[in-house]
Amino acid sequence: MKLKNKIKDLKRLKSGLYEKDFLLTWEKNENDIKVILKVAEILKQMREENISPKVFDSGLAVSIFRDNSTRTRFSYASAANLLGLEIQDMDEKKSQIAHGETVRETANMISFLTDFIGIRDDLFLGEGNKYMREVGEALDEGYKNGILPTRPGIVNLQCDMDHPTQSLADLLHLKNEYGSLEKLKGKKLVMSWAYSPSYGKPLSVPQGIIALMSRFGMDIELAYPEGYELIPEIVEIAKKNSKKSGGSFKISHSMKEAVKDADIVYPKSWAPFHIMEERTELLKKSDKIGLEKLEKQCLTENAKFKDWEYNEEKMKLTKKGKALYMHCLPADISGVSCQEGEVDGDTFEKFRLKTYQEAGYKPYIIAAIMFTNRFKNPGKTLKRILEKGEKRKG
Amino acid sequence: MKLKNKIKDLKRLKSGLYEKDFLLTWEKNENDIKVILKVAEILKQMREENISPKVFDSGLAVSIFRDNSTRTRFSYASAANLLGLEIQDMDEKKSQIAHGETVRETANMISFLTDFIGIRDDLFLGEGNKYMREVGEALDEGYKNGILPTRPGIVNLQCDMDHPTQSLADLLHLKNEYGSLEKLKGKKLVMSWAYSPSYGKPLSVPQGIIALMSRFGMDIELAYPEGYELIPEIVEIAKKNSKKSGGSFKISHSMKEAVKDADIVYPKSWAPFHIMEERTELLKKSDKIGLEKLEKQCLTENAKFKDWEYNEEKMKLTKKGKALYMHCLPADISGVSCQEGEVDGDTFEKFRLKTYQEAGYKPYIIAAIMFTNRFKNPGKTLKRILEKGEKRKG
Amino acid sequence: MKLKNKIKDLKRLKSGLYEKDFLLTWEKNENDIKVILKVAEILKQMREENISPKVFDSGLAVSIFRDNSTRTRFSYASAANLLGLEIQDMDEKKSQIAHGETVRETANMISFLTDFIGIRDDLFLGEGNKYMREVGEALDEGYKNGILPTRPGIVNLQCDMDHPTQSLADLLHLKNEYGSLEKLKGKKLVMSWAYSPSYGKPLSVPQGIIALMSRFGMDIELAYPEGYELIPEIVEIAKKNSKKSGGSFKISHSMKEAVKDADIVYPKSWAPFHIMEERTELLKKSDKIGLEKLEKQCLTENAKFKDWEYNEEKMKLTKKGKALYMHCLPADISGVSCQEGEVDGDTFEKFRLKTYQEAGYKPYIIAAIMFTNRFKNPGKTLKRILEKGEKRKG
Repeated sequence: MKLKNKIKDLKRLKSGLYEKDFLLTWEKNENDIKVILKVAEILKQMREENISPKVFDSGLAVSIFRDNSTRTRFSYASAANLLGLEIQDMDEKKSQIAHGETVRETANMISFLTDFIGIRDDLFLGEGNKYMREVGEALDEGYKNGILPTRPGIVNLQCDMDHPTQSLADLLHLKNEYGSLEKLKGKKLVMSWAYSPSYGKPLSVPQGIIALMSRFGMDIELAYPEGYELIPEIVEIAKKNSKKSGGSFKISHSMKEAVKDADIVYPKSWAPFHIMEERTELLKKSDKIGLEKLEKQCLTENAKFKDWEYNEEKMKLTKKGKALYMHCLPADISGVSCQEGEVDGDTFEKFRLKTYQEAGYKPYIIAAIMFTNRFKNPGKTLKRILEKGEKRKG
Repeated sequence: MKLKNKIKDLKRLKSGLYEKDFLLTWEKNENDIKVILKVAEILKQMREENISPKVFDSGLAVSIFRDNSTRTRFSYASAANLLGLEIQDMDEKKSQIAHGETVRETANMISFLTDFIGIRDDLFLGEGNKYMREVGEALDEGYKNGILPTRPGIVNLQCDMDHPTQSLADLLHLKNEYGSLEKLKGKKLVMSWAYSPSYGKPLSVPQGIIALMSRFGMDIELAYPEGYELIPEIVEIAKKNSKKSGGSFKISHSMKEAVKDADIVYPKSWAPFHIMEERTELLKKSDKIGLEKLEKQCLTENAKFKDWEYNEEKMKLTKKGKALYMHCLPADISGVSCQEGEVDGDTFEKFRLKTYQEAGYKPYIIAAIMFTNRFKNPGKTLKRILEKGEKRKG
Repeated sequence: MKLKNKIKDLKRLKSGLYEKDFLLTWEKNENDIKVILKVAEILKQMREENISPKVFDSGLAVSIFRDNSTRTRFSYASAANLLGLEIQDMDEKKSQIAHGETVRETANMISFLTDFIGIRDDLFLGEGNKYMREVGEALDEGYKNGILPTRPGIVNLQCDMDHPTQSLADLLHLKNEYGSLEKLKGKKLVMSWAYSPSYGKPLSVPQGIIALMSRFGMDIELAYPEGYELIPEIVEIAKKNSKKSGGSFKISHSMKEAVKDADIVYPKSWAPFHIMEERTELLKKSDKIGLEKLEKQCLTENAKFKDWEYNEEKMKLTKKGKALYMHCLPADISGVSCQEGEVDGDTFEKFRLKTYQEAGYKPYIIAAIMFTNRFKNPGKTLKRILEKGEKRKG
């Protein structure tokens, strides 16, 4: 579709994203979600057509990574750069759980000429999202008291509850695979736990997926071995969303059973909820011995479920034997990146390029989140950009 | 005041800042100081009115941090970005005292397309400022011999002698608190040592404050426990400045006595001069055991002066019980960031937002230093920017 | 010469650089080399005349440094910034030899909005260049399958085989020293091993120098103690080039003999070939004890050749006693950066500023590599830039 028409479509949607932080998809209404997707698509196409959507002449996009990241780091950097902002990393010791005056002060000190703060803080249950809100309150105070010329927007780059830039990129991938959001209705999506030899993976991806995808009338099945529950409140949100959107939501405890007739499978490891809770407590107390013991316990636990590998055999059980495989990457691939893992080598290979494509939406999702936070009428601004036709290269 | 009028005011001032490094405020005359403040104010207002003062289409602003920094790092990055330069960090091992050919060569190697080198080197008495001048001489040589297309300017981001971007931000804060530089005349400013449980804090902030504030007719009182002297030559400068500007300068040894009737108090810890001297010698010899012994000795020494805390009781003694509290941040706040520190929690809280505001001038002070170094007639250039009216956002 | 005329000269040359990686100079034909030099000169002069050749409105230039670097890092950053790209560092553990799926995936993940990937990977024989090609294949796959909107270009910032941005900067230095490439004909260039107290220096500089300089009719003499051979295939290339260009190529084993009547000397340490091969094997096996033993053995070996120092005595033997001294920096300077090294202090001092100048071409060589990779007709694009006359500063 032509950019002109996409922008027309966008102008029909009213959103409440202006000057709001993006912390959890379930705090946003359906129009907000649609606007993000549409703006992301437009920005992607502009870049492909060599049109520069640079809307900032200067300004910083600060990033705070309290956990390692390559994909999201580059996505955030690319998004900021596309719009004209410069990345500035805020380098904290990643295991620190800093709160109080330090957070309040630092939030202001790094924001005098800053438009966005992107935060990844996904290691401790009950902490990451809380931290983002603390930063937000500090920025509110600074802005209201004339310390900050503008209120920087916060972009959740993964917390303990949600990973919105991932789930929205995944949603845009699905939209493009099936042609429209409407066509997702009635599709069966299985979000399944999968075995991994590593420890302590966040719960935010499965939580983000079930909470977002349940809004589009899909039949969601969440499968995991008993003990690997997600945060109950978020599961409740997914249930309600499913009901409201005319889909269904089901929890089960066998990957093999779950994938039957699935249209879409998302096999991904995560740590058991209770382990993550204990871990947070031990970390607060800096109990090293306790933490080591817990890690061993968790890995022993995990090892019981090595058959939770997505593979050829399981794929055959899906709809026509060719369900769409999804992953946020990097996947633990049996025989490739580990001995036994989330997915076998042959199955992954079939969808490898699709997973790259899936990841490729993230920079634009982040750019769209930034764009809609800063421009009240994104359609109007994008129209002006299109008409101006500034080249990205050349 | 309107930008147009501020720029008119600026044009009346003649400065000698063009193509000169900014290393010590006392190497600059009064007009230079006024120009920096005025340009900083104009740049701040431009940013607030969404006018972009981007004067560089490309170019690097290198930073060399030989000590940790968050505030100054972000201020420098913001300033550079506002004017169109890209930050490039020069990552050295911070404890190294490199001199000679390495400095000379490196200074040129990082400067081929560089407009500024910002340096923080505040750990060793007699070293930091010397290092900056060594870099400067290397750049002079490179420029004169056609190796560098332009001579990058050096910005002192804190050395062993001065912290000019801090003291100038503080001065701008005072100017705005009282309405004008003229209104600072006759005000009593107390720069007081304060207790801190940490060790080895640089002397550059108190030195910078007394050397700069003494130029505006204030009654400066420098208070510290005996043994915590500052560099004598800089104290002399402050004395002379006070005399010349019609103010006064006094040294005393009780915080409680000093703050009586003060208009402004700046309670801040620093290490004893002789300890810093010994430390530099031990570091040159890499004498680890000696350094550990010295640290213990210093902390024991410090602990004798825990009553040098600025608090409610002392605040009551100041002018009308409401002297303006200043700090370069982060402060050691009793009961907040440490058990016993420079200031108590309640007193700090009363001025917390004011200290954020104080810090908020720093990016613009740095930008003004850059601007006046590169543009011979800053008023003219700013007028052109205003007339062009390029938007920062949108 | 005026920019206008230089651009006219450039337009006469046809190159095959468009959309090709720059990995080895010997994969490029003579016209390619000439175009790079010419574009580099034009960009340098534009910068000196305050004309901005910014051709990108946004876009990333990723850097992957698997070995330390200051000079090349800043050169790459300056080049990217000059053209409008923002640097984004890809931070790997430097000793890792990652291959396979990780490389393939990562290459795509960092490239969604990326124009260039600059790679330094020079530590392991048989690995660095191979790695770059692996990255290249992954990018090809991503681009062909619509995952990447453009195929990022790869810039070899030093591998185990070649250091093209260094050798091309060196060539541009020689061109400027002698007036033209034609005037290099018949000049004697000695690429000589030199003693250094350090261990494991890459072979890529001497290899890059002999393979490139042999294309311009010079008499190349490669001198080293027996056992310090270079990769045989690259020596063969140098021999063939010499024959074709009407020059000569000779290997000898005495620095003193070699420098006789030399016009140009390039005394530089490198590790023995067989040591580098053993080292790569030991590193693959993570054999720490073996590596330590090898290092000792190598240093003992090196120490036998301390008389391979370039100094006043040897300089007297060169053409008129004043051969041009070259070095990629930093040099191991006897009595300055080490006790006994590659060159004595007095001799180095005579050419110190010349070596800085030599280094100063590198940012423009890199910018030229980027420019010619992205613009099919660089002359036409540069003409447009000149006519537009956008200022870099002001």
